[in-house]
Amino acid sequence: MAQKPSIPKGTRDFSPIEMARRNYIFDTIKKVFRLYGFNQIETPAMENLSTLMGKYGEEGDKLLFKILNSGDYLRGIDRDLIDSGDTNRLAAQLCEKGLRYDLTVPFARYVVQHRNEIQFPFRRFQIQPVWRADRPQKGRYREFYQCDADVVGSDSLVNEIELLQIIDDVFSRLNINIAIKLNNRKVLAGIAEFIGEPDKMIDITVAIDKIDKIGIDNVNAELIERGLSQDAVNALRPILEIDGDLEERLAKLDSLLASSSVGMLGVSELREVIDGVKAVGLKAQLDLDVSLARGLNYYTGTIIEVKAMDVQIGSITGGGRYDNLTGIFGLPNVSGVGISFGADRIYDVMNTLNLYPEELQQSTTIMFTNFGSAEAAYALKLVREVRNAGIPAEVFPDSTKIQKQMKYANAANIPFVAIVGESEIAQGKVTLKNMVTGEQKLLTVAEVIDAIK
Amino acid sequence: MAQKPSIPKGTRDFSPIEMARRNYIFDTIKKVFRLYGFNQIETPAMENLSTLMGKYGEEGDKLLFKILNSGDYLRGIDRDLIDSGDTNRLAAQLCEKGLRYDLTVPFARYVVQHRNEIQFPFRRFQIQPVWRADRPQKGRYREFYQCDADVVGSDSLVNEIELLQIIDDVFSRLNINIAIKLNNRKVLAGIAEFIGEPDKMIDITVAIDKIDKIGIDNVNAELIERGLSQDAVNALRPILEIDGDLEERLAKLDSLLASSSVGMLGVSELREVIDGVKAVGLKAQLDLDVSLARGLNYYTGTIIEVKAMDVQIGSITGGGRYDNLTGIFGLPNVSGVGISFGADRIYDVMNTLNLYPEELQQSTTIMFTNFGSAEAAYALKLVREVRNAGIPAEVFPDSTKIQKQMKYANAANIPFVAIVGESEIAQGKVTLKNMVTGEQKLLTVAEVIDAIK
Repeated sequence: MAQKPSIPKGTRDFSPIEMARRNYIFDTIKKVFRLYGFNQIETPAMENLSTLMGKYGEEGDKLLFKILNSGDYLRGIDRDLIDSGDTNRLAAQLCEKGLRYDLTVPFARYVVQHRNEIQFPFRRFQIQPVWRADRPQKGRYREFYQCDADVVGSDSLVNEIELLQIIDDVFSRLNINIAIKLNNRKVLAGIAEFIGEPDKMIDITVAIDKIDKIGIDNVNAELIERGLSQDAVNALRPILEIDGDLEERLAKLDSLLASSSVGMLGVSELREVIDGVKAVGLKAQLDLDVSLARGLNYYTGTIIEVKAMDVQIGSITGGGRYDNLTGIFGLPNVSGVGISFGADRIYDVMNTLNLYPEELQQSTTIMFTNFGSAEAAYALKLVREVRNAGIPAEVFPDSTKIQKQMKYANAANIPFVAIVGESEIAQGKVTLKNMVTGEQKLLTVAEVIDAIK
Repeated sequence: MAQKPSIPKGTRDFSPIEMARRNYIFDTIKKVFRLYGFNQIETPAMENLSTLMGKYGEEGDKLLFKILNSGDYLRGIDRDLIDSGDTNRLAAQLCEKGLRYDLTVPFARYVVQHRNEIQFPFRRFQIQPVWRADRPQKGRYREFYQCDADVVGSDSLVNEIELLQIIDDVFSRLNINIAIKLNNRKVLAGIAEFIGEPDKMIDITVAIDKIDKIGIDNVNAELIERGLSQDAVNALRPILEIDGDLEERLAKLDSLLASSSVGMLGVSELREVIDGVKAVGLKAQLDLDVSLARGLNYYTGTIIEVKAMDVQIGSITGGGRYDNLTGIFGLPNVSGVGISFGADRIYDVMNTLNLYPEELQQSTTIMFTNFGSAEAAYALKLVREVRNAGIPAEVFPDSTKIQKQMKYANAANIPFVAIVGESEIAQGKVTLKNMVTGEQKLLTVAEVIDAIK
């Protein structure tokens, strides 16, 4: 029976031109990662569910794609559990494996598992798809790529400075104008201390993270709802209203958080990172934003977020320092810092602004025509020489009318066609047609190679 | 709680050096695919189960990794079905999606779904992982990469000739000696006709495919078991014992199958392909093997299999022509022909024979030392110039003893170290140490770049 073919919602096919565009982005990111001394690793798409569960919060657990056990997956399963309707607990028994949700947790698992083979500080990058059972919507997919670079085993803020340079370098190569926002988790802890609510840091960060979306009044209402005193909310206000340039903001934070030692440490880390990147020079706009939290509770120091200036699309890169990510897998005290490029959002930005170089449109450089078996045999010999010269080339496989072959070459954006008929064979040449100008010339293969190069 | 980290059986992590080796293989294959005018596509890891089920036989259905539906996956499921223990039917209700099992069925689905955007003949390549719930064993993984190139929408045997050239080109670039075996499904049909068992072609091909493993006597016993007459088995013997060089084998097949028109068509196709590749020249050994069937019932013409000459590992590449793959998705009469490189077996062969180029061992080219914040700030400025020259470089992030930094550079196979101390800063230079020869020189950055390049 014929089925109407389709793919799962939230997933995508990528056509040749889409792949050329995506490869352009991935290759640019890879090239920069390598220039900065990062080495690639890969981990399996499937991880043990025990590796993934509990790492992304309760909501994250629900968004994990779980893989049904092979064979008799019902064996040993308690009927009462099935009847109870507790689908979460049941899923943990039906499924041992899940698809990775990000690259950070698999990386932490990798570091712990392979700690004896790794040279620390370990600079690794990883570019692989991740899967989330999110509700699909514009710009949000169920399968998408992350491009992560992390350094583990080093406390030095030199790493932060270099990661910010990587961000700057990648987006400047891609011609995307960006603003980089910085914050530091210790500043957030300092703020919680300063306003007299040291135990409410998470509540405070979750609420103020939304200030751009819902405004300060709604944030304040939420803070009261989360149990903060009115005094604390009042004390918070001047911090959220800090303005001016980077230096002014740092100075204001310095004086406001003077009473909190952790807060002062955060400010001093921010200052070191900002001074460091200023010294080497940065093309991107650099901002300090004390409301930036990125919702990820594993950050312990620097927090980084990148937005595109010319397209409204949310964060296109993020990152930060985490001091205890490998602790959950039994290896404490390994500090790490990393960034993650959101390749699919970057792809959307590049598409919206049409930032791809012209030559990406082309695939094969030259097509040889096919007017019969003798002509095809001749073409197959010549095309070998063209390929040996490193030029992508194809022979039209079927012997059909020249119009059909030319139409194909046109539609496939092939810039040159080598016409091979009886008279060309007799002269040991081909007629090279430039598909853009329409110009035709009788040439030897060596001349064709020269003409194309 | 600390967990002992591990990954699902049959899956693998790839370390930086392993990735360098794998990228070398993938990049070689990609480069050749592109030289031959093939364009890359990608499809999602997850396909609808309805796309995958029934395409790989009953055994294949069981080997599909199925993804548990999100949310309340028990809703609407008949309790009787759960109680029946029919885990296959139940799985089809618990799971709408599965992980792709190969690249061929997703490609067929892609062609049908996007037929209006595609230029035919469509030359596509695809390099992505596939997943099979096979019992893991040496050389067999649950996650492995396939590298496929197919042409759809063309009957011409020029495609076969070019695909064989691609195989030859890839393995000669990788320095792997190979033998390519050829057969043709029409020859197999001709054989079944010739021995008077035209309806038993599948039984015959399944049995004779094992001749290398179990010998001709066991094959004959299996044929009797599968319902062939003794006369048929006797008639088959001379065909299986055909020997000599390619020309002799073709001539013998020609005379043996003279009574079968489909058989004669198969022989003539084989001859055209063999003559074609001989005319352009092939480095690999080329064999004709009438017992070759590759178990895949969708092949309708040419069948291709590649073995490594110097390592015992089974087939490392395979392929063939299929005339109706897209028919199952509602698009009949689209002929296709393709090959699939088994990247993971090729990786095993390359590892066994140690066929990688020397320079793959290296990652970063130069490391700058770090003896404190002033030195690090100076190093960060210089390293920028080195990277701008396209040289992968890193700064040791932590200010520690020189021994520790040198030990790291050594272990990470970094060939050059730039030592940056007070006296170097005063002179505006660095001390470049060649980690292989031990030689040290005081140089400007420009001189360092020259020395490395």
